[in-house]
Amino acid sequence: MTVSREVELEGHIIDSGMMQSCFGIIMDLGGSFSVEEFDIGRHKDEESYARMLVEADDEDQLQSIVHELHQHGVNPSDPKDATLVPAPDDQVVPHGFYSTTNHPTYIRYEGEWVEVEDMEMDCAVVVEDSEDGPRAFTKVLNAIEEGDMVVTDETGIKVQPPERPRDSGGAFGFMQGGVSSERPSESTIRKIANAIRETKKEGGKVLAVCGPALIHSGAREDLARLVREGYVDMLSAGNGFAVHDIERDIYGTSLGMDTESLDHPRHGHKHHIYTISEVIREGGIAEAVESGTIESGVMYECVDNDRPFVLAGSIRDDGPLPDTITDAVEAQNAIREQAHEADMVLMLSTLLHSVAVGNCLPSTTRVVCVDINPATVTQLLDRGSAQAVGMVTDIGTFVPILAEQLLEE
Amino acid sequence: MTVSREVELEGHIIDSGMMQSCFGIIMDLGGSFSVEEFDIGRHKDEESYARMLVEADDEDQLQSIVHELHQHGVNPSDPKDATLVPAPDDQVVPHGFYSTTNHPTYIRYEGEWVEVEDMEMDCAVVVEDSEDGPRAFTKVLNAIEEGDMVVTDETGIKVQPPERPRDSGGAFGFMQGGVSSERPSESTIRKIANAIRETKKEGGKVLAVCGPALIHSGAREDLARLVREGYVDMLSAGNGFAVHDIERDIYGTSLGMDTESLDHPRHGHKHHIYTISEVIREGGIAEAVESGTIESGVMYECVDNDRPFVLAGSIRDDGPLPDTITDAVEAQNAIREQAHEADMVLMLSTLLHSVAVGNCLPSTTRVVCVDINPATVTQLLDRGSAQAVGMVTDIGTFVPILAEQLLEE
Amino acid sequence: MTVSREVELEGHIIDSGMMQSCFGIIMDLGGSFSVEEFDIGRHKDEESYARMLVEADDEDQLQSIVHELHQHGVNPSDPKDATLVPAPDDQVVPHGFYSTTNHPTYIRYEGEWVEVEDMEMDCAVVVEDSEDGPRAFTKVLNAIEEGDMVVTDETGIKVQPPERPRDSGGAFGFMQGGVSSERPSESTIRKIANAIRETKKEGGKVLAVCGPALIHSGAREDLARLVREGYVDMLSAGNGFAVHDIERDIYGTSLGMDTESLDHPRHGHKHHIYTISEVIREGGIAEAVESGTIESGVMYECVDNDRPFVLAGSIRDDGPLPDTITDAVEAQNAIREQAHEADMVLMLSTLLHSVAVGNCLPSTTRVVCVDINPATVTQLLDRGSAQAVGMVTDIGTFVPILAEQLLEE
Amino acid sequence: MTVSREVELEGHIIDSGMMQSCFGIIMDLGGSFSVEEFDIGRHKDEESYARMLVEADDEDQLQSIVHELHQHGVNPSDPKDATLVPAPDDQVVPHGFYSTTNHPTYIRYEGEWVEVEDMEMDCAVVVEDSEDGPRAFTKVLNAIEEGDMVVTDETGIKVQPPERPRDSGGAFGFMQGGVSSERPSESTIRKIANAIRETKKEGGKVLAVCGPALIHSGAREDLARLVREGYVDMLSAGNGFAVHDIERDIYGTSLGMDTESLDHPRHGHKHHIYTISEVIREGGIAEAVESGTIESGVMYECVDNDRPFVLAGSIRDDGPLPDTITDAVEAQNAIREQAHEADMVLMLSTLLHSVAVGNCLPSTTRVVCVDINPATVTQLLDRGSAQAVGMVTDIGTFVPILAEQLLEE
Repeated sequence: MTVSREVELEGHIIDSGMMQSCFGIIMDLGGSFSVEEFDIGRHKDEESYARMLVEADDEDQLQSIVHELHQHGVNPSDPKDATLVPAPDDQVVPHGFYSTTNHPTYIRYEGEWVEVEDMEMDCAVVVEDSEDGPRAFTKVLNAIEEGDMVVTDETGIKVQPPERPRDSGGAFGFMQGGVSSERPSESTIRKIANAIRETKKEGGKVLAVCGPALIHSGAREDLARLVREGYVDMLSAGNGFAVHDIERDIYGTSLGMDTESLDHPRHGHKHHIYTISEVIREGGIAEAVESGTIESGVMYECVDNDRPFVLAGSIRDDGPLPDTITDAVEAQNAIREQAHEADMVLMLSTLLHSVAVGNCLPSTTRVVCVDINPATVTQLLDRGSAQAVGMVTDIGTFVPILAEQLLEE
Repeated sequence: MTVSREVELEGHIIDSGMMQSCFGIIMDLGGSFSVEEFDIGRHKDEESYARMLVEADDEDQLQSIVHELHQHGVNPSDPKDATLVPAPDDQVVPHGFYSTTNHPTYIRYEGEWVEVEDMEMDCAVVVEDSEDGPRAFTKVLNAIEEGDMVVTDETGIKVQPPERPRDSGGAFGFMQGGVSSERPSESTIRKIANAIRETKKEGGKVLAVCGPALIHSGAREDLARLVREGYVDMLSAGNGFAVHDIERDIYGTSLGMDTESLDHPRHGHKHHIYTISEVIREGGIAEAVESGTIESGVMYECVDNDRPFVLAGSIRDDGPLPDTITDAVEAQNAIREQAHEADMVLMLSTLLHSVAVGNCLPSTTRVVCVDINPATVTQLLDRGSAQAVGMVTDIGTFVPILAEQLLEE
Repeated sequence: MTVSREVELEGHIIDSGMMQSCFGIIMDLGGSFSVEEFDIGRHKDEESYARMLVEADDEDQLQSIVHELHQHGVNPSDPKDATLVPAPDDQVVPHGFYSTTNHPTYIRYEGEWVEVEDMEMDCAVVVEDSEDGPRAFTKVLNAIEEGDMVVTDETGIKVQPPERPRDSGGAFGFMQGGVSSERPSESTIRKIANAIRETKKEGGKVLAVCGPALIHSGAREDLARLVREGYVDMLSAGNGFAVHDIERDIYGTSLGMDTESLDHPRHGHKHHIYTISEVIREGGIAEAVESGTIESGVMYECVDNDRPFVLAGSIRDDGPLPDTITDAVEAQNAIREQAHEADMVLMLSTLLHSVAVGNCLPSTTRVVCVDINPATVTQLLDRGSAQAVGMVTDIGTFVPILAEQLLEE
Repeated sequence: MTVSREVELEGHIIDSGMMQSCFGIIMDLGGSFSVEEFDIGRHKDEESYARMLVEADDEDQLQSIVHELHQHGVNPSDPKDATLVPAPDDQVVPHGFYSTTNHPTYIRYEGEWVEVEDMEMDCAVVVEDSEDGPRAFTKVLNAIEEGDMVVTDETGIKVQPPERPRDSGGAFGFMQGGVSSERPSESTIRKIANAIRETKKEGGKVLAVCGPALIHSGAREDLARLVREGYVDMLSAGNGFAVHDIERDIYGTSLGMDTESLDHPRHGHKHHIYTISEVIREGGIAEAVESGTIESGVMYECVDNDRPFVLAGSIRDDGPLPDTITDAVEAQNAIREQAHEADMVLMLSTLLHSVAVGNCLPSTTRVVCVDINPATVTQLLDRGSAQAVGMVTDIGTFVPILAEQLLEE
């Protein structure tokens, strides 16, 4: 017995690779297809349309294929309303729940398409009636409450992966290039500077995700300038980053090394612990800035210029600082809020925090990922933003050159 | 004006490198020295003794030198009692507090040397009178309470770095080799197996610190056998490790990939989220084992054989499972307790958890560190255990060969 | 003014990605297109056909686009004979020469399509009349002789990139997976063993490209068994590999380390130099095998079982051995000959030799690339074989497990 | 039965680590020792002296220990003349030949100490009578001629490893720091610039060893300026480096990518092959500079400013250029000559060429090693120069910042 379903593809389905993925999925999962209609965009500005019949040996296989096609933006041609099933318990999803991609998504509810709010991958979608009509939004597993109406199966869901821009020009045109292994470093940094400038010009917000290597490598002062001058609107980091930054202000060292003279990398941890102890005594970073204990640096500029920051705790932390959110779930929620507000994210030398932020990003957010370890850059770019670029370079030279490009031209 | 202090070195001070470090420290910090007495061990079993006068330009510099010498086991020749200062507030250390190394340490209190309990680096030392006499123990910053009597300055403190064994033979003799880059893999694994066997024979405990790559790489079944057969006594991991392990049991996949056939790496996260959802429904891992929901794997064997485990949360986690400790400080405390009980630690493909565990280890604990990334292995070995070995290899082939060595010979 | 040319695509042009690449190229290079005919294969076994008009602003741009389309198998719809221009001098190509891809290629000569022999990328194509009719074959730059009739421009050339098999089953189905970062190691090795077995069953030849790490990591005996048992038909390596292998036979060490006991990694280079000195004294490896100086190992098995080997020299070499080809051009020619005979190539822990071999491979040769450095694996796979798989693992555990799979099942 | 020999250590034998190594060697190799005399330098400027008796179970073991001690600068206290044995054949060393370290070495010949010329490791030492008295010099294996008087055994040889400077100040003081992983990038580059400036001030010569990544990463123009301005006296590279550099001049691309706009990374290899073809047509790089074909770039500046360069061939090369030395032995000889003349070597993003150069360097040459891959930097620094520093950074940002430091201050 063969079962089948009719699906549709629309848009630049060939050069975006959608059609190819679609054929690949069907064959990989053991199904077959026949193309029933195919209107190709004759010119590069015209969209294409395809309708095809997907066939499989049984319903299970068919659902499996249709599920995958969905993730890539192929939708059933005859849409029905989405199936809603109440969550059986707090933090428990109904069987067959729909797990989101990070692409713009729509739910069919009472015959209408409702856009899902706060898109983020690996979430459930909950539908609610509100005064302004029906709302659909993502919920992570630990936020699910008993009785939430959760979308299940594949019916009544439309996914629209962002298309690859047809034109590689413009300030963001270079952001499809994957990892730059053999690209000229200074030219690439200039392009990143342009993209930041353009994002700001459009009224967008830039979120910097920062690892402690930024401080060790001597990039602190230049990053502080970028915060002060408004090229960085929000900051996401860990306890270590903030402590190193403040230690540099109070003791002139970072983990005990004088970052100017490179001398005497000793006594390190004592300064480190003192720094935390001092900030605890003051009650927090903002209080320490106010009291004059902290007089410069990245955290100082964040406080002084009202750039919100999230410091997420981890099991490696000393201290931590009073500002550090030690609970992982609470910290994720704070990260999520920042991530949803960002139009462009700079991931600077931190795998842990970049993954955490990246998990919360819709595929429409621009991402720049910089690390000296190519494996880190590759892993972060694989999460799939439509406009992303990775650069394997030294953060200690990247930030100064970026700051020069942004501030001195 | 010149200030000076007399210090002493004892033991195998030349071949352990202590004397060399000592001279290096004094010169690096701008001081000078004259050797007043030097008795060299004439034979390889005799200890040596040196007494020397350290000179510096001012008291600050001298303290700085003496501080560093301390860290390397050089102690003042005329000991006085340690200086104790009450902590001014919760989580605040007095100025000049003594920050610990990870070496065995003694505090001079009322003329007697008291060994510091729970040695761990970057802590404060608190001294307390108890019924059984004075006790000295480490406290991390966030555990400091107002009024704790904290050791400050360098006076009255003796540090004894473990010496390099004079004989490279024996089951642990190879554990001084740093990172094995060009060593024969199978022979090195055989040596590690011997060291585990010897540790067990001595009645020691083995702690395995496990990353999720263990599951992806197909090492799950062999690790589960090592837990079952008692070669692993305790487990330290993250939420992801446990979820992947349980997903493999319930759905036959790990992040959606069938680890046998390598087929269909799709649907992944749905299984992942379902797994968490199911365990939450049961109330936890032990409950899910009892109810028969989990029937095999590493976590199953831990529960079934009463091997304690710590799952520490992080900001990357999905879920998390009810067993995962989401608060970083609480998780550190659980990790600390395990670390202090361990005689040998296997760090298997996780940087984050290995650093967290490594931070809590005294320098006398044996450490084996395995990762495919040489930078990770180097970073972990740098933390300084006296008996440690690193191996850059594939965890997916390492664990099966280790299990074969331990279980089938 | 706009210029245009009509081009055609045939085959599984959508799921092989050809159509997508084609649209991408045209847009990247600033041209435009209109699709004039499009017959899509309605079922997964049917081929598709597209004819389209490529437009550009000037002839230069058009040629540039058409050149790139060629590389991806898009050919002009109205073929003319190829343009042949005599080489002006030895080692000098005529302007506008056609630089090859590594895909099967045909040259139109006197109205007929002639298949190009010895396909290899970045070469010129030379056409010659012979008794059996016209022949076309590749020549590297340094082999070009004055007067050679060299194909220039894009006219009269047809390129056929191998298609992605529609079915991922079969022994080679897994060889499209790129680099296995998170795949189960033992299962992947089992699949590689199957692919080797299948290649031998088909009467194919397996070429092993070997780095010295094979010996240091203890994989020597198992590789020797694979040579003896006929799973490796040819060997490509450097001077160092052969010397380490023979040193192990004569002195029981590799670079001075006993690969069994791991003891005393000293005296290394003396054994190393002695080994070379001894082989020079005998006149070569085969002579040293015959005289009984070499009694075991990889090189021994090559000689004893008539498996041809190429040892290519490099500027890092000690010695070198008399068998090592010190001239780079001569060595390349020897490598080229082996590469053209191979049906499957195992690249084992050597970047330099793997790149050299890879440069000479047509895209139809199967490639397995194993290295502990992910950057090496990625770089090698990027050269583009249609059936290739990379594995990031420890060669010292990979070869023993592979040998077990092949020899003991 | 026990055999013994008396040995001596002189100099800063404790803080240079010599004494520690010495004790370690004896114990590792199963011997024992008694210290017969020990005069410790009482102040940091005084040298120390030790005489001790090394004991072993048999003569073989004793020789093995004494051999190792030699390598570390420990010499027999009662020196005899060195043993000279004629080489039995071309490229064949006598049994027991002495294999050199890279440290300054002296041979006792007719009661006098003769310094060995052209120190380099893993060579034989040949002694010859000349008009100016006896000469001792190193010879690599392939240069040995039948009848050469080769030093054998350990007798009559004195090795003097350079001592660690007692003072870490001065322009070269930072060059003992191993690999900079967590050091501030800009400050480290400033220190390297100072060391280059100081070397030039002392009349020393700087050799740059260059990989092709220098060109891809956009560092070409700044490197060319350093050659022009005389901060680089000699260049060692491969065929690829020169071709990419010249391609950039002639076609504005490097492997086909416009290094300014980052556009159109296509056509690459055609430009590459054309470049080689054009230089062959001219007869060589110097000829192409003279004729005006090459007008800028690194190779241009080398020719224009009479900075000698060595281009060593490899099996990966296209072409090669007429200037490329394709024979590995001949290329090594050219590299050796440059290496022996250099006072400071900059190893810039090439493992192959850096190893080849490094093999020829005495331990007294200053070495700076820059690569983005930490494993490469570690491997190169392990070869053991007394003044060496490694930096893990992006060559595309390193060279511009270095040039700015050197040229604009």
